[in-house]
Amino acid sequence: MNYPLDAQVTPRFAGSPTFFRLPQQNNLDGLEVAVTGIPFDSAASFRPGARFGPRAVREMSSLLRPFNRVLDIDPYKILNCADVGDCPVNPFDTLESLDLMAERYHEIARAGVTPLSFGGDHLVALGELRGIARARGPVAVLQVDAHLDTWDSYFGSKYTHGSFMKRAIEEGLVDVAHTLQVGIRGPLFSSQDMADVRALGIEILPMDAIVDWTVDQIAAAIHARVGSAPVFLTFDVDGVDPAFAPGTGTPEIGGFTSQQIIALLHRLRGVNLIGADIVEVSPAYDNAGITALLAARVGYEVLGLLALQRKKGA
Amino acid sequence: MNYPLDAQVTPRFAGSPTFFRLPQQNNLDGLEVAVTGIPFDSAASFRPGARFGPRAVREMSSLLRPFNRVLDIDPYKILNCADVGDCPVNPFDTLESLDLMAERYHEIARAGVTPLSFGGDHLVALGELRGIARARGPVAVLQVDAHLDTWDSYFGSKYTHGSFMKRAIEEGLVDVAHTLQVGIRGPLFSSQDMADVRALGIEILPMDAIVDWTVDQIAAAIHARVGSAPVFLTFDVDGVDPAFAPGTGTPEIGGFTSQQIIALLHRLRGVNLIGADIVEVSPAYDNAGITALLAARVGYEVLGLLALQRKKGA
Amino acid sequence: MNYPLDAQVTPRFAGSPTFFRLPQQNNLDGLEVAVTGIPFDSAASFRPGARFGPRAVREMSSLLRPFNRVLDIDPYKILNCADVGDCPVNPFDTLESLDLMAERYHEIARAGVTPLSFGGDHLVALGELRGIARARGPVAVLQVDAHLDTWDSYFGSKYTHGSFMKRAIEEGLVDVAHTLQVGIRGPLFSSQDMADVRALGIEILPMDAIVDWTVDQIAAAIHARVGSAPVFLTFDVDGVDPAFAPGTGTPEIGGFTSQQIIALLHRLRGVNLIGADIVEVSPAYDNAGITALLAARVGYEVLGLLALQRKKGA
Amino acid sequence: MNYPLDAQVTPRFAGSPTFFRLPQQNNLDGLEVAVTGIPFDSAASFRPGARFGPRAVREMSSLLRPFNRVLDIDPYKILNCADVGDCPVNPFDTLESLDLMAERYHEIARAGVTPLSFGGDHLVALGELRGIARARGPVAVLQVDAHLDTWDSYFGSKYTHGSFMKRAIEEGLVDVAHTLQVGIRGPLFSSQDMADVRALGIEILPMDAIVDWTVDQIAAAIHARVGSAPVFLTFDVDGVDPAFAPGTGTPEIGGFTSQQIIALLHRLRGVNLIGADIVEVSPAYDNAGITALLAARVGYEVLGLLALQRKKGA
Amino acid sequence: MNYPLDAQVTPRFAGSPTFFRLPQQNNLDGLEVAVTGIPFDSAASFRPGARFGPRAVREMSSLLRPFNRVLDIDPYKILNCADVGDCPVNPFDTLESLDLMAERYHEIARAGVTPLSFGGDHLVALGELRGIARARGPVAVLQVDAHLDTWDSYFGSKYTHGSFMKRAIEEGLVDVAHTLQVGIRGPLFSSQDMADVRALGIEILPMDAIVDWTVDQIAAAIHARVGSAPVFLTFDVDGVDPAFAPGTGTPEIGGFTSQQIIALLHRLRGVNLIGADIVEVSPAYDNAGITALLAARVGYEVLGLLALQRKKGA
Amino acid sequence: MNYPLDAQVTPRFAGSPTFFRLPQQNNLDGLEVAVTGIPFDSAASFRPGARFGPRAVREMSSLLRPFNRVLDIDPYKILNCADVGDCPVNPFDTLESLDLMAERYHEIARAGVTPLSFGGDHLVALGELRGIARARGPVAVLQVDAHLDTWDSYFGSKYTHGSFMKRAIEEGLVDVAHTLQVGIRGPLFSSQDMADVRALGIEILPMDAIVDWTVDQIAAAIHARVGSAPVFLTFDVDGVDPAFAPGTGTPEIGGFTSQQIIALLHRLRGVNLIGADIVEVSPAYDNAGITALLAARVGYEVLGLLALQRKKGA
Repeated sequence: MNYPLDAQVTPRFAGSPTFFRLPQQNNLDGLEVAVTGIPFDSAASFRPGARFGPRAVREMSSLLRPFNRVLDIDPYKILNCADVGDCPVNPFDTLESLDLMAERYHEIARAGVTPLSFGGDHLVALGELRGIARARGPVAVLQVDAHLDTWDSYFGSKYTHGSFMKRAIEEGLVDVAHTLQVGIRGPLFSSQDMADVRALGIEILPMDAIVDWTVDQIAAAIHARVGSAPVFLTFDVDGVDPAFAPGTGTPEIGGFTSQQIIALLHRLRGVNLIGADIVEVSPAYDNAGITALLAARVGYEVLGLLALQRKKGA
Repeated sequence: MNYPLDAQVTPRFAGSPTFFRLPQQNNLDGLEVAVTGIPFDSAASFRPGARFGPRAVREMSSLLRPFNRVLDIDPYKILNCADVGDCPVNPFDTLESLDLMAERYHEIARAGVTPLSFGGDHLVALGELRGIARARGPVAVLQVDAHLDTWDSYFGSKYTHGSFMKRAIEEGLVDVAHTLQVGIRGPLFSSQDMADVRALGIEILPMDAIVDWTVDQIAAAIHARVGSAPVFLTFDVDGVDPAFAPGTGTPEIGGFTSQQIIALLHRLRGVNLIGADIVEVSPAYDNAGITALLAARVGYEVLGLLALQRKKGA
Repeated sequence: MNYPLDAQVTPRFAGSPTFFRLPQQNNLDGLEVAVTGIPFDSAASFRPGARFGPRAVREMSSLLRPFNRVLDIDPYKILNCADVGDCPVNPFDTLESLDLMAERYHEIARAGVTPLSFGGDHLVALGELRGIARARGPVAVLQVDAHLDTWDSYFGSKYTHGSFMKRAIEEGLVDVAHTLQVGIRGPLFSSQDMADVRALGIEILPMDAIVDWTVDQIAAAIHARVGSAPVFLTFDVDGVDPAFAPGTGTPEIGGFTSQQIIALLHRLRGVNLIGADIVEVSPAYDNAGITALLAARVGYEVLGLLALQRKKGA
Repeated sequence: MNYPLDAQVTPRFAGSPTFFRLPQQNNLDGLEVAVTGIPFDSAASFRPGARFGPRAVREMSSLLRPFNRVLDIDPYKILNCADVGDCPVNPFDTLESLDLMAERYHEIARAGVTPLSFGGDHLVALGELRGIARARGPVAVLQVDAHLDTWDSYFGSKYTHGSFMKRAIEEGLVDVAHTLQVGIRGPLFSSQDMADVRALGIEILPMDAIVDWTVDQIAAAIHARVGSAPVFLTFDVDGVDPAFAPGTGTPEIGGFTSQQIIALLHRLRGVNLIGADIVEVSPAYDNAGITALLAARVGYEVLGLLALQRKKGA
Repeated sequence: MNYPLDAQVTPRFAGSPTFFRLPQQNNLDGLEVAVTGIPFDSAASFRPGARFGPRAVREMSSLLRPFNRVLDIDPYKILNCADVGDCPVNPFDTLESLDLMAERYHEIARAGVTPLSFGGDHLVALGELRGIARARGPVAVLQVDAHLDTWDSYFGSKYTHGSFMKRAIEEGLVDVAHTLQVGIRGPLFSSQDMADVRALGIEILPMDAIVDWTVDQIAAAIHARVGSAPVFLTFDVDGVDPAFAPGTGTPEIGGFTSQQIIALLHRLRGVNLIGADIVEVSPAYDNAGITALLAARVGYEVLGLLALQRKKGA
Repeated sequence: MNYPLDAQVTPRFAGSPTFFRLPQQNNLDGLEVAVTGIPFDSAASFRPGARFGPRAVREMSSLLRPFNRVLDIDPYKILNCADVGDCPVNPFDTLESLDLMAERYHEIARAGVTPLSFGGDHLVALGELRGIARARGPVAVLQVDAHLDTWDSYFGSKYTHGSFMKRAIEEGLVDVAHTLQVGIRGPLFSSQDMADVRALGIEILPMDAIVDWTVDQIAAAIHARVGSAPVFLTFDVDGVDPAFAPGTGTPEIGGFTSQQIIALLHRLRGVNLIGADIVEVSPAYDNAGITALLAARVGYEVLGLLALQRKKGA
């Protein structure tokens, strides 16, 4: 069973970093969780650079020790995990890249392995959902994000980081009835944007609706929506306030604190998670690696939740 | 009617940026709101650099889309707005600069146009209030700030960013009875400072008084003070915590979060706003533009409030 | 009686900075509080650089005015304070450095002077506690920190910033019964870590336990534990979230806001403080000096608390 | 006749910046030089971000005064110049973007106006050369660059910033016999790369060939190659060493100093320049704007050379 | 006799830094060289911030050991030096500040002490020269600078960092016949600028005139001009290329390398130096302190030259 | 035979980076060159952080293509190379770390593999030389450095980055007669320092001696000294000017340009290189990775020289 490098033997700052200091493995043999990077940002509309996200997350994930005190579990003792490397992409061909991501995710899902990815811009979620849906049909999506990502197109392109969710729903990849967007805020193009979202059937829990809410209340709203449906968590770091996550491509003032995010993740116990990605880490705009560290930590908490599921299910 | 550049036609990163991607206009013809920069920082006592604030805010305001979902309004469809360029200033002559600002504001106010400015250090508010008072008499001031700015003088100078409020009151520009300072915190020179503030008649709502308050409570306190008086909002970005607004000249630990600020602005519906400035953005100390983005967003929310007023009044 | 430089005479940006703009003094004559730096980081396990912490804190402490409005006291009018310079250290010899720190603290404590230090990595607290205990026996420790610092050793070394607390307890320097750790969070090595902490007798108040608590509640828990015991406050800036304190060696997502910290310190009135340190400021990772400013401000609040104690006791 | 804003009237830091503080003009009427930005970086293979290049160059060009002492000319008194805004681009469609650039350049060239552009990644030169060739046939290219940019394709794409020169030659846009690449250095993919360059007929003057050369010698080699042919200067800022131009996408150690570059440009008097671009400024990696300033200065020297040509020709 | 702190006893990173780790001394008793800071930047026309220059230089001067191998001298064994603190200034009153500087310099010069200052913007040289001239009459000026600083006024102000040299000559403070400006480059306002310089009688050695010169040639030109006249060296760090000195207010592409500067200073042996300043260090734009380090090193080389003079004269 | 990842298949920004995109290999089987990191900085006297050097170099080495045009060789087609991971170190025990490095180097040298390492602070060279000497006796050292590193001790420690060379000579690891230090500059502790160096028998070629030299002249001086002796190249990045290599612990003004360095390396053809290290890369002080890129490039040129040797020898 894979286990992170022992920090008493190999210092955290040594060697070429892997996700969570896990072994690198080129295939999926024996894995329960495949951790992968998707270094693709050709669908970004403002600041590009998320192609360097996976490397930055690997670097900062060096800081994470194995045992999750709050969830009372060491995920690496429950789940066989590995850094399976980065998904192949073509920076000059978005459609081909989506195909490559879908293939990779299909392969992972079909093998019964749970995927955990680090982007990359948010369009990578479309490739991932295609692969998942191909293997097991549509899944609910829990989207933490400042933005709806339901715009139809941008400069004539149907495949941008601002339209991935519309495409995913149109393509039938999403169990809309249990899908929820949390953290939505900031100005929109027009009032039609919200009508479009409603027409798609998504529920949103925008920041203005949860001002002064406790984390328990937010968590309850999530559980109420997703229920026991299989859920893919897609976590855009711009869901968090830029004070906590400056290293991102389209920052939006007024988001979650990192404390809210971590506490919220702890309260997702019982959600039927079938995979997750954390996207839009853009290191050139980061400060001392805190955005990459936040992304890594979110991934670590997902591992904890997956381990709890497995343990309970076992 | 002016409207921001269409982001589907001109990418957000293209061209020389204007405030909110609005057209530039050299005169006030037909305007309801004049957005202007005041690139002046010769009255700063610690870190200078706010002269570059207007440019930084223009740059980051590129990110803001037009429709305000929470206020349910597109301000640009209600109010004819333009970037009227920067107010002329003389970096080597503070008194002349104050005159230039007052003239500009007088011209704007006399034309029945609502001013929205981006500083510049906080002394610019004195020039602005002079112009407004000349056109319409004293107005209430809602000041979001870490500092009182009621010191008498600094190094013998009566006109610094730490004394603008005292001067404004002494000069009779302020409707003190409806004036309030929010966000005040940090050490003072002596206990006399508070006595001076009280003598001036200002009410303050310091951070220590509102620890653990909900945003609704804070908003209620503001409404209680300002009532229906005409109010000028002067927003010093150091009212916000330096985690959210590092790019400022005299940062002060322990301020508002950006989420509190945005939620608070939404709750200012009904306040009789007659203009606003957002000051003390110092880009050389900013991180990935988040302070400039916050300033731009505050200005955008002000536009929304103004549009609501107008709509209701119409 | 020493007093900070008058900001109306000497600009805040002028001269070689001292802590709080206090006079430098090589001896302890007539002092009630000795402010010192401990530029030592050879016990850091991840990012070194806290050796530059004292300089950065001196620089940013220039911003702090003397009067504490919330505590209603000017500490410098109650307590004779000075910047007594940096404690001698040997960057290549940790044991010798600990001895040097212990000697310095012993000298200070024996003279009846209250020590306030800026680190340096967290191991400096061990040297300090040795000096204090030698002069007056064990004291309670109030530790604000993301990490337990109770690991036994790291790479065979018993003296690292992650094991200072274990050593201090083993050496009998700590009044464990009134000792408390606040702000603890993040992954651990194993479930054994918590068992070890409990075996040591320490109480911890981790972040996950206080999600959505008011500051009053947190303060009450601290008072309940420390009671009237003599308490040494050891404040690791990574107890605060990296958004507020990015300049540190082992950042940990999900910590206190600076507003919580300042409000909490105000509520420590009545705690029997006998000294304090603020550690782990690593300027190379800071952003516009906000971490150093936070550290300086924490120290300033400590001075206020000490002055209140003194005044009450007088 | 257009003239830069007077720095005695409008401070250099005021207003929304334009190239060289020139007026903005939407059409080409009366112009002799059209200065434009091309905010396109979708063809970058490593670090993207050059889409923000034109804005950064506008900002830093504020520093440039009008009179060229070395060339003894004020270009703005000889040539009517304007900032004609940014060329339209589609960040999600490289082929369409190339068409848009070609159209713009065709329009400029057909109108007898000289184009001066700021990129954008180096592929923009292909669009520009298409427009120029359409209007007046092939032109010689003087390329300052660390890289050959003659690779055939990258990830199957024929249109990347590393293949623009090969495409331009294949498309018959280049007068190869008078074309020269200066500043070439760094590792290649294989020995075939040089054979390919030779097959294309380009001459290169690599850095290793000119170690210890005087600037006069370098200039002589350029004049010898380009002779009196009409020349388009395409200046990739990575031709300069990353110490002088860190803000670029594919930095290459060992390049020109900025002093060499400026002196070299002065020695291009007599070259028959018909246009120029300066590309690959990537502000997210810049330091205090020095790369953008260098790019702006190169453009300013080009204006001086164009003015000299005109004066001589008049 | 004062001597820098021993780096074997006090680590270079310890304590509040002074210039060259020298003792601080409030008076001039027994000194041969008084090292001072002048934290004034209210006369800067573009990027302010040089008020923080003296602190940054003190910090980085910690790196300098005492013995000058090339000049074969330990200046501190020849000359009694001290950090005499910062000159008082009034950030809001330029004329008063000039008076304060002149007084300080007069006091120093009258006492027969050699002044070495770190600015501050370049206007500080006017205050310094006033003080020197008052004590001993006009002196030659050796100015290393990108800019002439002979403009008449800026925004109506006669006292800016761009006009200090014109004022100094007009006021009769300068021995023009032996005065020289080295490093001049970049665009001017008009051809009149050079006529004005010539009318003032200054010689300039611009960068374009010395392309490909050896350092010996440059040094010979300096010696030829200054001869044996008493010379004040005024060193604007923007004389050096922004790659080597990014931390400055008005960077200018194409300047000296730091290697040229150090070698040039070594060749100033025999020049009759009577004082020096190093100005325009603006830390907010610096990178890893390299500009401040360069400024400190220039000052250190000046100390070496002064020590050689003294030794020879003794 | 190992070969770097194909950039047409795996983008340069993808995956966890290895040195030169080479395969990772845990043993030495079949290797001719072993590339390794030594993440150790506990012997640094000023700014620590070089422990993160190997990671930063791996990251930036992604930019390097395989074919060396100037040396006309693809080193990976001649030499079987691999990234063999980081050498084990103990950040809290310098002596043990030296033993670990010596063991690693002994193992490499004994196996007939050529070592190429990236530090780490300069003390790592002592560990390396111990391992080499154990396997094959003393070797000549070609040291590119700003500093002599021949000090006896620092704070009582014999093993610091400033004394590695003295220790290496004392321990008999160095063929002093063919050893040379290039790039030496900056102040020393006393005139004794040079006497000590001479007593050790080292030749130095300081920067002041080679001002205005051509690269050919410098290269000739190196060849004259090292002759045909087996030479270990130890390259401290502070030998290069901080403009080109800001990311280092003890920057020293006035060093080599990167162009000089690359040209010099090309001229080391014929030197009998038996290994090399590149040390003192401290990423926290770097700018856009240019220091790490320079270090990587130096390593790449070493591979080219080794391949030439091998080819010639074959």
